[in-house]
Amino acid sequence: MFDNADRTNLDQLGEFGLIDHLTKNIKLQHAATLKGVGDDAAVLDPAGKKVLISTDLLLEGIHFDLAYTPLKHLGYKAIQVNLSDICAMNAIPAQVTVSLGMSSKYTLEAIEELYEGIYLACDKYKIDIVGGDTTSSKQGLVISVTVLGYANEEDVVYRNTAEEGDLLCVSGDLGGAYTGLQLLEREKLIYLENPKIQPDLEGKDYIIERQLKPEARQDIVQLLKDLKVKPTAMIDVSDGLASEILHICKQSNKGCQLYEEKIPIDPMTYETAREFNLDPTVCALSGGEDYELLFTIKQADYDKIKHDVDVSIIGYITEAAAGCNLISKSGQVHELKAQGWNAFKK
Amino acid sequence: MFDNADRTNLDQLGEFGLIDHLTKNIKLQHAATLKGVGDDAAVLDPAGKKVLISTDLLLEGIHFDLAYTPLKHLGYKAIQVNLSDICAMNAIPAQVTVSLGMSSKYTLEAIEELYEGIYLACDKYKIDIVGGDTTSSKQGLVISVTVLGYANEEDVVYRNTAEEGDLLCVSGDLGGAYTGLQLLEREKLIYLENPKIQPDLEGKDYIIERQLKPEARQDIVQLLKDLKVKPTAMIDVSDGLASEILHICKQSNKGCQLYEEKIPIDPMTYETAREFNLDPTVCALSGGEDYELLFTIKQADYDKIKHDVDVSIIGYITEAAAGCNLISKSGQVHELKAQGWNAFKK
Repeated sequence: MFDNADRTNLDQLGEFGLIDHLTKNIKLQHAATLKGVGDDAAVLDPAGKKVLISTDLLLEGIHFDLAYTPLKHLGYKAIQVNLSDICAMNAIPAQVTVSLGMSSKYTLEAIEELYEGIYLACDKYKIDIVGGDTTSSKQGLVISVTVLGYANEEDVVYRNTAEEGDLLCVSGDLGGAYTGLQLLEREKLIYLENPKIQPDLEGKDYIIERQLKPEARQDIVQLLKDLKVKPTAMIDVSDGLASEILHICKQSNKGCQLYEEKIPIDPMTYETAREFNLDPTVCALSGGEDYELLFTIKQADYDKIKHDVDVSIIGYITEAAAGCNLISKSGQVHELKAQGWNAFKK
Repeated sequence: MFDNADRTNLDQLGEFGLIDHLTKNIKLQHAATLKGVGDDAAVLDPAGKKVLISTDLLLEGIHFDLAYTPLKHLGYKAIQVNLSDICAMNAIPAQVTVSLGMSSKYTLEAIEELYEGIYLACDKYKIDIVGGDTTSSKQGLVISVTVLGYANEEDVVYRNTAEEGDLLCVSGDLGGAYTGLQLLEREKLIYLENPKIQPDLEGKDYIIERQLKPEARQDIVQLLKDLKVKPTAMIDVSDGLASEILHICKQSNKGCQLYEEKIPIDPMTYETAREFNLDPTVCALSGGEDYELLFTIKQADYDKIKHDVDVSIIGYITEAAAGCNLISKSGQVHELKAQGWNAFKK
């Protein structure tokens, strides 16, 4: 996959050399970071705030396919999916640790490309890289990111605090990451059959980016703050809308009514799903990886948020006994089920 | 490796089922843990202290060999090596996140065994498991642990603050983990040649345990506090004494005199090294994985620590220009070099 001529073999640098090389340009941006990379541990000053921590493990062949994932995008995404978890607590991410396991097929230049994406994501969101671990791997690329964020205790939003009557809201649009993945998988198969055919992804930038280069919705956390709306419950959409709604309902011991016609789906997602003979609603419900924020708000906050084009109100919370229901466009009531990725894997 | 009859396949549980199963018995022990597993992120209250964070990535085939590493020991060690990093900052570890990637060859029972070791280590040191990630893996077992600890800012000890004239100290004894590894590797080879021969590890418990079941020296952090000795610099011995001394000297811009005769080596380590025609001193200098604490103290603190049998004074810090020297038992001066594991791999 990589051209090894004129490239630097990782063995030449050694572990400490590699770490030095990759971390020498880190500029710490947060007053909270007292000591970053270079000691047994980083030292952070929460300055009276609560600390939020989340972690994700990304494995080659499971979470990403290097046949169509540029390493720079992969680095960017590895950071974003973690930042998204902190945003989902209504908090602001501040630091990450990044651990990498790499087989010897990777050159220094390839790892630099990966790090370029990591740095890009961190710069954009003013995140400090404060630690990590670098090791060789017999098993392809392993990426483990841990993210820290901070919030005042009264601002933290959990999953288990939705109340009956609350409005169910979601940011952005859904299903794009999944339909983008379908395109990439199709072009990979065509390429494997005939390497001379160039991938046909023209005009599909938006959904390709939704898959390869997602953005954590820190802007929504800020928007809610500006609008003085504190969600009653929140989660990020990593496994598909249905799965996330069910998490909120189950953990809050509530039910819900979700309206199919209200689920925000971009026209390109809609068209592409149709091309693949997929139901666009199913892509939104079960596709996952959109990294939008799903949250509930009090009805009293409706007027504050109703004009925001980037937030859709897609249903409301009911008592648990009413169950979790999807109301189809034709008015039929279906039990909401989390199929996640498995639904597509049959 | 595992007998799959009457065993539970991981696929039957699914990711959420597995996480629920593995985390249902977690009892939070720290007042600092406001919210553990079960949301997008854990929420922690540092209560005015500084936060320390460190992370380690352990990969099958690189960091451990399941041919002779019981999964319970592996889980225990994965936690200990992380705790050790927080101890090395003169701080007390409090929480961990644990991420696992597992190929389908692992049964639920095997993962439970791994977790048993994780829980044992956490219970012993009153550590809360507050998060993690669980995923399938195409690449064998992947373990990523991140640890958080807390300290007052004035108590944190870095690597780069050793001063000329400071005494160089190390806890416990060195080289045991490496000689233990030699034994295990030898018995593995014998077993591979003839599976009917039982491993001959009798009487070697101590060094086998040093390799398979290390202990973070939190007791030394407590001892130093009790003795009112604040080290001037500190690091844990994961890569071998030589490498760690050089880290302190390089980062502090100092040199050192290290006395071979003062390096603490257990008699069993000594004998076993000899059996393998290895120099016991080289095992201590370059073997690694002992997870003892290496630290420097002011000469004025010598009287407070001199009677402690678990701390050895092995040399002193000099100006940088004097270099980093090993004074052999015969009085010869050698430049101290970090060979780490590579030295043995030729």
